[in-house]
Amino acid sequence: MLELIAPLVVQNTTKIVALSLDGLGGLPRPETGRSELETARLPNLSALAAESACGLIRHVAPGITPGSGPGHLGLFGYDPLRYQVGRGVLEALGIEFDLRPGDVAARGNFCTVDASGRITDRRAGRIPTEVSVRLTERLRGIRLPGVELFVEPVKEHRFVLVLRARGRRGVLSGRLSESDPQALGRAPLPVKALEPKATATARWVNAFVAHARRRLADIAPANMVLLRGFDQLPKLPRFPEVFGLRAAAIAAYPMYRGLAKLVGMEVLKTGGTFGEELATLREHWDAYDFFFLHYKDTDKAGEDGNFDAKVAALERLDASVPDIRALKPDVLVITGDHATPSVLAAHGWQPVPVLLWSRYCGADPVTAFTERACAAGSLGILPSHHLMPLVMANALRLTKFGA
Amino acid sequence: MLELIAPLVVQNTTKIVALSLDGLGGLPRPETGRSELETARLPNLSALAAESACGLIRHVAPGITPGSGPGHLGLFGYDPLRYQVGRGVLEALGIEFDLRPGDVAARGNFCTVDASGRITDRRAGRIPTEVSVRLTERLRGIRLPGVELFVEPVKEHRFVLVLRARGRRGVLSGRLSESDPQALGRAPLPVKALEPKATATARWVNAFVAHARRRLADIAPANMVLLRGFDQLPKLPRFPEVFGLRAAAIAAYPMYRGLAKLVGMEVLKTGGTFGEELATLREHWDAYDFFFLHYKDTDKAGEDGNFDAKVAALERLDASVPDIRALKPDVLVITGDHATPSVLAAHGWQPVPVLLWSRYCGADPVTAFTERACAAGSLGILPSHHLMPLVMANALRLTKFGA
Repeated sequence: MLELIAPLVVQNTTKIVALSLDGLGGLPRPETGRSELETARLPNLSALAAESACGLIRHVAPGITPGSGPGHLGLFGYDPLRYQVGRGVLEALGIEFDLRPGDVAARGNFCTVDASGRITDRRAGRIPTEVSVRLTERLRGIRLPGVELFVEPVKEHRFVLVLRARGRRGVLSGRLSESDPQALGRAPLPVKALEPKATATARWVNAFVAHARRRLADIAPANMVLLRGFDQLPKLPRFPEVFGLRAAAIAAYPMYRGLAKLVGMEVLKTGGTFGEELATLREHWDAYDFFFLHYKDTDKAGEDGNFDAKVAALERLDASVPDIRALKPDVLVITGDHATPSVLAAHGWQPVPVLLWSRYCGADPVTAFTERACAAGSLGILPSHHLMPLVMANALRLTKFGA
Repeated sequence: MLELIAPLVVQNTTKIVALSLDGLGGLPRPETGRSELETARLPNLSALAAESACGLIRHVAPGITPGSGPGHLGLFGYDPLRYQVGRGVLEALGIEFDLRPGDVAARGNFCTVDASGRITDRRAGRIPTEVSVRLTERLRGIRLPGVELFVEPVKEHRFVLVLRARGRRGVLSGRLSESDPQALGRAPLPVKALEPKATATARWVNAFVAHARRRLADIAPANMVLLRGFDQLPKLPRFPEVFGLRAAAIAAYPMYRGLAKLVGMEVLKTGGTFGEELATLREHWDAYDFFFLHYKDTDKAGEDGNFDAKVAALERLDASVPDIRALKPDVLVITGDHATPSVLAAHGWQPVPVLLWSRYCGADPVTAFTERACAAGSLGILPSHHLMPLVMANALRLTKFGA
């Protein structure tokens, strides 16, 4: 798709706003038979849907629940099955660690092992983040010749390990097996190289684990580490070059800033609320062609299984829609990176409503921004990475294919 | 898809009519909120839609605006991303030049260069076609050893250059860079071979350009040529063989006759009006199984940005529907090769309504042949090259897949 699009791109002065409502899609609450979107009062989104082309976005494939990485990469135009980002890299992006090409990142867990070294709790009782912060400080003292180590706390028992080769690139490889046996009663596994080039990296990682074990030996319950999801930054075509857009990302949460940076968008400094995100949008309106705007509250409420809070988050967002429209974007697209149905209290595999407004979007019969209404929209069920070409077409930024 | 279909084909005596309304799809006029199809009075198409399976055809991919080449190849059953036809070849087809396997065709522009050879107008002020005709006559005098040259006027400043190797096939290659720098103030570029086999072709093309420059030197404003879109006839599976159909094309415009010929259809001699096309259809009814029928007026009006003219073109077409039905085809399919919304005054990327009637098409709730109504049809959004298999099935010309 990117190879098809890039040669068709033309320049103009149109403005595009892409708003991602994290975890947008939901499911009916059994008591009422209505989903979060169907329960919320959303006058502005309904009015916009009536003027827009609507449909459902499928992010990966039927039945596949997307993580935030593939969810957003799809929205940015990258086929998430082709462009995969390792879990260690996503974890590093999620704390806005300045990961560099060649670095190897892994997800770490503090865990509990018994006297014979067998795992008794893979999450060390989900120790509080403050405890994790102190433990990572201990591990930062570990020194290994030839490689720089970074140990960064994430949340609860989770941390990130990053290895950076001193001096030269190409020394490290993320093709490593995991140390986490994903079972109790077994000892953590030694990490193995999955390609010859990864031999040195495996040695460094195993040396780190041996040091960590000694440094944590006296700290119950978190007396050991588990590592998985080793990977390096993927090589992605750069969004501003593929689409010929000066592209800015406005997101309060580090994970989404990290994903936007990964594809080469400019990440704007902004505050922690959506109101501050909108102020940032207004302030930089003239300087960019494309704005990726991220709204987190919908996902948070869904992950908490809090149906009413998700309804409220949708209603708060609805109240902001006129502020966005007041800027008069040429294309306004609203969708999400995945569903987070409150009844699942987790990401879901369900396709997610999308609305696309432009002067040339064409009308369809949809007059509400809900899962059920959008299923009858003119966009049909759209693979997420097909959305950007449609956005570009509506911005009149693509010339025709073939004569 | 073609590889899947060909072995399933069975013979029978059913008749198929595929009617392409060029540039069929439109967009709502802002004043009324209704598209051309929604504005026109189309009693016959509405009645037919009510008895048909309806949907939307997507020709290339979401957001991609198809040219006439990919638009029609898709309707003929060829995946337009897999079977690409170069612009030079399309230009030659568009004037019904008898392009042969091995020939290399290019699009030419007459342009203006200053005394130092730098381009000052890439289209030489869009000189009238009559002037172009005289200039091409001058260029026809150019002789080069080993190759035959054809220079044919198209329209305004445009012409076609065709190189044909004397004696042997396989001497020429279309893998050449373009001479048009696509910018003013620069000299035309020498054409370069993009594969070793193209070296001789590049030499001949550059020699032609040098001669052309001398022959045009005194002719203001069109004193130079630009060449691009070099290509050869693609190797396409032949439509009559893949589908086991005696296939005839009835089209008044050369481009569509050329595209039908490209896939091996028999191109019937016909007049310049749709009424004459219908007379041709009746006359040859017994001799063929499949008729491709082309209606141009919808596209012309759309390209002119003339909403009312497009509405009128649709109403004229509607009046002809009973004449087609009177022939009692077993399958009647009506769609277009791309949208040409009057508000865009150009080809559009929007999916295009399709209706498919047969005794076995299955009913759906659609009772109007419009973009909005067809979005809710039982065919959904159908890739264009999936239409022919559906047509074949409705003609009971495909046996089952797997035992």
